[in-house]
Amino acid sequence: MSGVLQVVGMGPGDPDLLTLKAVRLIEAAPVVAFFAKRGRTGHARRIAGDRIDARAELLRFEYPFTTELAVEDPRYLAEIGQFYEGCAAQLAERLAGGDDVALLCEGDPFFYGSAMYLFDRLHREFRTEIVPGVTGMSGCWSAAGIPFTHGDDVLMVLPGTLDRQALASRLATADAAVIMKVGSNLAKIQAVLDDAGLLSRAVYVESGMMPGQRILPLAEMAGQAAPYFSMVLVPGRRRAR
Amino acid sequence: MSGVLQVVGMGPGDPDLLTLKAVRLIEAAPVVAFFAKRGRTGHARRIAGDRIDARAELLRFEYPFTTELAVEDPRYLAEIGQFYEGCAAQLAERLAGGDDVALLCEGDPFFYGSAMYLFDRLHREFRTEIVPGVTGMSGCWSAAGIPFTHGDDVLMVLPGTLDRQALASRLATADAAVIMKVGSNLAKIQAVLDDAGLLSRAVYVESGMMPGQRILPLAEMAGQAAPYFSMVLVPGRRRAR
Ligand SMILES: C[S@@+](CC[C@H](N)C(=O)[O-])C[C@H]1O[C@@H](n2cnc3c(N)ncnc32)[C@H](O)[C@@H]1O
Ligand SMILES: C[S@@+](CC[C@H](N)C(=O)[O-])C[C@H]1O[C@@H](n2cnc3c(N)ncnc32)[C@H](O)[C@@H]1O
Repeated sequence: MSGVLQVVGMGPGDPDLLTLKAVRLIEAAPVVAFFAKRGRTGHARRIAGDRIDARAELLRFEYPFTTELAVEDPRYLAEIGQFYEGCAAQLAERLAGGDDVALLCEGDPFFYGSAMYLFDRLHREFRTEIVPGVTGMSGCWSAAGIPFTHGDDVLMVLPGTLDRQALASRLATADAAVIMKVGSNLAKIQAVLDDAGLLSRAVYVESGMMPGQRILPLAEMAGQAAPYFSMVLVPGRRRAR
Repeated sequence: MSGVLQVVGMGPGDPDLLTLKAVRLIEAAPVVAFFAKRGRTGHARRIAGDRIDARAELLRFEYPFTTELAVEDPRYLAEIGQFYEGCAAQLAERLAGGDDVALLCEGDPFFYGSAMYLFDRLHREFRTEIVPGVTGMSGCWSAAGIPFTHGDDVLMVLPGTLDRQALASRLATADAAVIMKVGSNLAKIQAVLDDAGLLSRAVYVESGMMPGQRILPLAEMAGQAAPYFSMVLVPGRRRAR
């Protein structure tokens, strides 16, 4: 009997925002896998804290690069593909051996999560279970105390990696918007929102619901770049009701 | 000392998807409030189950109507405004008396939740705490096993109440889309997706992560209407990685 691949959403960062199901699976898993940047603990690993069984095997998947290669670079695609192949092979070995594996993922796994690339490679061969988590954006608008979408608001979720024109055209038909992956795109995002007349409504949230949380008007952010865990929120229309 | 208004996200429907924080607050609250449709238990109340303290006061806020008035009807706005005023007054009384109040909300409270209208009325006067929850959409794409947004996908969240033209123009620039509030808009949504060439990719999810869950290709849904807890998912581009 093969094991089950459990893809476990870890929420925005506060361990108190883990679901009961996530906690139960993490505590029981004989194998726990997670992604981490070079030299870092890994964000999902940090949220799990000491809930992981001391006897569990830990599989730490370290990204082969951080920002040295541009995402458009064909070498990026080749290298990241090889990386995911290797991770999937390690998981497949444990699953085939009969062990369940908990693959920990920041936020909600199927919402821009890397775990999807391992799920894609394994779900035909092994049983899988997806445990949804609280997304980073829900954590951020809750931390900021901003009721976000109302009535028939249209919400757009936009990666900050899009170019100016692509961002601007989407924002023009949105009521509420979330811009993820701010990083080195900060100045571009500020400029696009300014052009669209939305800068005064935009809020910047860094490390929402985790240590080091910062919340401020986007207009007050100086500098060209923001850290990885940051997003921009443009709340929807607040209706008189 | 006034009490704290705790706005508590209850997740998509499975009580196992409550967060640790939600459980703790629900168990400790001396007053628990929730919305319900006429003659129903109330969905958030059902998810809370027997976690609510037997001595807690329950405030059941029953919507004054279900679908008798159209949302565009000015009488709707007036009536619903009066209803929310009444609910807020009841909460204010308990808060002023020093009791914390847990206001239970389906999914994530600040994502199209009615609780926002009570928060709007009370947050200046009372301390508030927002506990984000797993959204219905995260529950639905996880239940369906559909990795949803990848890389630089643009996600649109669209209320099915929008007219054909508004839906079509947004869908034209989306990579992934979630259409909420399907209900009596089912046939319209099917037609719009068919016109956009997206019908074959669209998945219908009813009661995701709750009893009675149904998942099927949208193209196979017959009839003119769907129940309240249903949505349509159009997954993003699955990239070769
Ligand atoms: C690869 S995506 C992963 C999203 C995740 N699966 C989720 O459900 O939120 C990473 C981006 O999510 C955003 N993000 C996630 N959690 C966040 C948090 N707690 N605070 C700020 N931004 C966050 C940032 O914009 C970051 O660049
Ligand atoms: C007023 S909105 C509330 C959304 C909620 N606050 C959330 O975070 O998902 C109600 C709509 O959410 C969608 N919905 C919420 N939970 C759902 C579930 N478990 N299954 C299917 N649809 C759901 C339906 O489209 C429904 O019409």
